[in-house]
Amino acid sequence: MAMKMVVPFFLFPILRLHFLLLHDHSPLIGNPEGTTCYHFVIIACHTRVQRNVNLEKLRTGYLFPEISMHELQHIRKYPDAKLINLGIGDTTKPIPEIISVSMAEYARALSTVEGYRGYGAEQGNKALRKAIAETFYKNVQVKDSEVFVSDGSQCDIARLQLLLGSNVTVAVQDPSFPAYIDTSVIMGQAGDFEEKSGKFGNIEYMKCGPQNNFFPELAKTRRTDIIFFCSPNNPTGYAATRQQLEELVKFAKANGSIIIFDSAYAVYVTDDSPRSIFEIPGAKEVAIEVSSFSKFAGFTGVRLGWTVVPEELCFSNGFPVINDFNRIVCTCFNGASNIAQAGGLACLSSEGFMAVCSVVDYYRENAKILLKTLKSLGLKVYGGENAPYVWAQFPGSKSWDVFDDILEKAHVITVPGSGFGPGGEEFMRISAFGHRETILEASKRLKGLFS
Amino acid sequence: MAMKMVVPFFLFPILRLHFLLLHDHSPLIGNPEGTTCYHFVIIACHTRVQRNVNLEKLRTGYLFPEISMHELQHIRKYPDAKLINLGIGDTTKPIPEIISVSMAEYARALSTVEGYRGYGAEQGNKALRKAIAETFYKNVQVKDSEVFVSDGSQCDIARLQLLLGSNVTVAVQDPSFPAYIDTSVIMGQAGDFEEKSGKFGNIEYMKCGPQNNFFPELAKTRRTDIIFFCSPNNPTGYAATRQQLEELVKFAKANGSIIIFDSAYAVYVTDDSPRSIFEIPGAKEVAIEVSSFSKFAGFTGVRLGWTVVPEELCFSNGFPVINDFNRIVCTCFNGASNIAQAGGLACLSSEGFMAVCSVVDYYRENAKILLKTLKSLGLKVYGGENAPYVWAQFPGSKSWDVFDDILEKAHVITVPGSGFGPGGEEFMRISAFGHRETILEASKRLKGLFS
Repeated sequence: MAMKMVVPFFLFPILRLHFLLLHDHSPLIGNPEGTTCYHFVIIACHTRVQRNVNLEKLRTGYLFPEISMHELQHIRKYPDAKLINLGIGDTTKPIPEIISVSMAEYARALSTVEGYRGYGAEQGNKALRKAIAETFYKNVQVKDSEVFVSDGSQCDIARLQLLLGSNVTVAVQDPSFPAYIDTSVIMGQAGDFEEKSGKFGNIEYMKCGPQNNFFPELAKTRRTDIIFFCSPNNPTGYAATRQQLEELVKFAKANGSIIIFDSAYAVYVTDDSPRSIFEIPGAKEVAIEVSSFSKFAGFTGVRLGWTVVPEELCFSNGFPVINDFNRIVCTCFNGASNIAQAGGLACLSSEGFMAVCSVVDYYRENAKILLKTLKSLGLKVYGGENAPYVWAQFPGSKSWDVFDDILEKAHVITVPGSGFGPGGEEFMRISAFGHRETILEASKRLKGLFS
Repeated sequence: MAMKMVVPFFLFPILRLHFLLLHDHSPLIGNPEGTTCYHFVIIACHTRVQRNVNLEKLRTGYLFPEISMHELQHIRKYPDAKLINLGIGDTTKPIPEIISVSMAEYARALSTVEGYRGYGAEQGNKALRKAIAETFYKNVQVKDSEVFVSDGSQCDIARLQLLLGSNVTVAVQDPSFPAYIDTSVIMGQAGDFEEKSGKFGNIEYMKCGPQNNFFPELAKTRRTDIIFFCSPNNPTGYAATRQQLEELVKFAKANGSIIIFDSAYAVYVTDDSPRSIFEIPGAKEVAIEVSSFSKFAGFTGVRLGWTVVPEELCFSNGFPVINDFNRIVCTCFNGASNIAQAGGLACLSSEGFMAVCSVVDYYRENAKILLKTLKSLGLKVYGGENAPYVWAQFPGSKSWDVFDDILEKAHVITVPGSGFGPGGEEFMRISAFGHRETILEASKRLKGLFS
């Protein structure tokens, strides 16, 4: 029984009521529809089921809802300002026609006896698994059967955590995409959060910044079972070099670790940095790769991704990881939407691939513009060449202060780097996923602000 | 490095190679594309990461791949037999046009500036959440914000397990859909599997059969934190009465337990059995409901479902369960495909709903035909009136023997009840999800076999 009302605090012990701040499904990453609304709910009874201690450990102030709150406050303060959002890394350009038509035709055919399909394989349609292997792993001999189609890499990261269980130790790049740490905490792999360091206990934070060419000092890195590694990196926009990844694979081999390599931004690589961890010889014995159609084909809302688990990868007892991942996929998932899979297949046709790449080029050009602008202002800027993110440094400043400053004076939303871990302090992530005119306007305003 | 070859066993200790039976992504539930293929792989090196002990506990012989193996053997033995599959509960009828057209139009519009959408809310589009609340929970005051749209109930069950963690105790109906127990085992809630009883330790099996009107003897049921309860039930096809569900809610309240109520087959109810646990007064303080568009709208491949977590439901410390579920959905999921959601919305328009219900009526008629046939043969048959499954009892027989008998003599695939737990022994599940002519032909063959 919930009643919305305010009750004097002194009544609490008498009424045995619980006074809770119930967060009404706040807008998180890419929730344009969400509205943040706090209200008080009084709960008159509760179960005897204990709250999961791991969820209690999670930080309550999640990055993206916090940004949305700042955004809302700003809109209230400046209702006429033309706010530009270069915060959330969400795609904005329409999907090429060849792909949307394929999905539309597949959907339409579901009304016909010939075109109707029920359950598909949990691991994905054979044709799509084959096309992914051939398109992205042609020269590194990934088998179709090692490709598991999914509804996106964030979901696959959670499934990989279910696979690994609570007894593994984990290392992450610092800064990094929050899902690695959050899912580790949910699975019970992490210790408590330490306010002072801004870190969870029992998680190895591998600092990556300009001082070490955005690559961890492996000699000083504690051995862990799992190493999450994202390249090109979100948020820093830095793509690890071949030599760096060779070092990483060597390190994992020496330690008997498993690398979970996130290549969601691989298609943005312009130089000869590896697009897959499997370009590194021997990586199949120590790595899993998660990837996605989201930033590659604008499928953030369509939902499609994949994970490669090589047959060679084994647990300490020699049991193949792929067998357990297959079991997780079949038990905790039921395959990606067949319509999204039809779209994925269209992306990997020669015509579709060219069309998709032209959109990627568009975002790349945006990143170049942002990079050039910020550099021209004398700022220390990184990323933007092999990734749709620019990573700007403001030495000595708190990133939330810089965020507020840019928002207040230029009406531009960015992301404070500290939201990606303590190693992101002093930095701002600026997303290149926007329409050209927006990027140019944002550049103009940033010039006005910093010059 | 993997080499496919056979190596004499005596060489193993010398070579320090590991000889593994690698299962090549066998066909599981509704994997029509899968082919079962065993091969030997020799692994020359492995990591130091320990295999998750919970995954080690899972049974290797999963029900549906085993059925597929029998099916394949049968096809080899009788290449000319016209095999009828009433095993896997997969929908076969095309989706009504109004729905496929909506999805096609949504997909097509993704190529336009106006129609393009990136990330949606992780919890689902507002319009769809509202439509679900209004269509299925009109009289029980479920709020839009309590509805979380998902990619299907199996996936939501796994996410609910992530929410609950490893320290809860669990009860399941016996027999029941395998995902409840399997995800409990994966999360570490279960003890070891006991071959003799056919049960996992630490899981409470609530036997449901004709002897207790398919409702557990609650007076003899051990208190657990979580009670998985599916009604109309898969596999028994039995829908719990209002009185039975009132008893269940009372039992949960007395024990401070949380019911996870699976209403995936609710639309098949024809009598006045509740279609939602929330029809029972007070259920919102003790229950979560998972449900799906799969069997309601033929969306088994499109992938769409939902979960209702009432605001009133709290952990023992008074913390609202909905807050933690929201966090899980935002961290481990990224929303259902926007195209599937457009289809869901079309299903819930008045015209769409009528069209979908006429497909449900078709499957209902199938179930009636099967029920009548088996009853006319003097068999003990249950279900089939409020569910698309018929549950036939063969006293004194092993269900795998009956399965083999029906397959061998009638060329009809069914599901042996023992696959759903020890309480399913002696029973067979027969699915009504088929074309009418298939159902009629199967009925004819079963008549020939059993009369």
